[in-house]
Amino acid sequence: MRIPILKLHNYLLISIQTEMDDNTAIQFQEDLLSEIHRTGASGVVIDLTSVDMIDSFIAKVLGDVVKMSNLMGAKVVLTGIQPPVAMTLIELGVHLQNVPTALDLEQGLLKLRQELGE
Amino acid sequence: MRIPILKLHNYLLISIQTEMDDNTAIQFQEDLLSEIHRTGASGVVIDLTSVDMIDSFIAKVLGDVVKMSNLMGAKVVLTGIQPPVAMTLIELGVHLQNVPTALDLEQGLLKLRQELGE
Repeated sequence: MRIPILKLHNYLLISIQTEMDDNTAIQFQEDLLSEIHRTGASGVVIDLTSVDMIDSFIAKVLGDVVKMSNLMGAKVVLTGIQPPVAMTLIELGVHLQNVPTALDLEQGLLKLRQELGE
Repeated sequence: MRIPILKLHNYLLISIQTEMDDNTAIQFQEDLLSEIHRTGASGVVIDLTSVDMIDSFIAKVLGDVVKMSNLMGAKVVLTGIQPPVAMTLIELGVHLQNVPTALDLEQGLLKLRQELGE
């Protein structure tokens, strides 16, 4: 299955609400990068509110997709990171330094606007 | 699989980007109604941009979910309806009269604000 990517103004919104297996994660990475390219989006909010836990592979893909998006010129904000997800990310060395985070989608969009000075 | 429902301010956003089978459609109907109840959302945008065609069952579920949402007090705007989808809906007698429509998610949100006078 594919994770839907919504375009709103100049931003892409993603809410991950299924347990991601490896293929879904890789597909998501591809889809997001091609959507950034296609739409010229300046920012991305990835909402993880519904994600209870992640494994090492998903953590790595998530870290990578943030860096890749930044390389392509789109700022990423992660929202709704739950305690076990935060623990997994740090324990696995996916530090996501300089990656802005926020409580939920709304706060994430606000943060994005601030970061981009829009 | 479940179709993700995003909450933004007082609205719920849904972008249908997979081919819906009957179970997905029924699950979506249940999920949307329970999210309207849980969040007290005043409006819903369902974006069908990525939907190429629908069958009679999905058309009926879509018509039903709009009426059910309205009954629960949430205004629904449909966006991105493609020609074959419009044809199927009308041919099957799912008229969706009085249902506001718009080109895309952004226009849909604008329309929702107008309809709700917000």
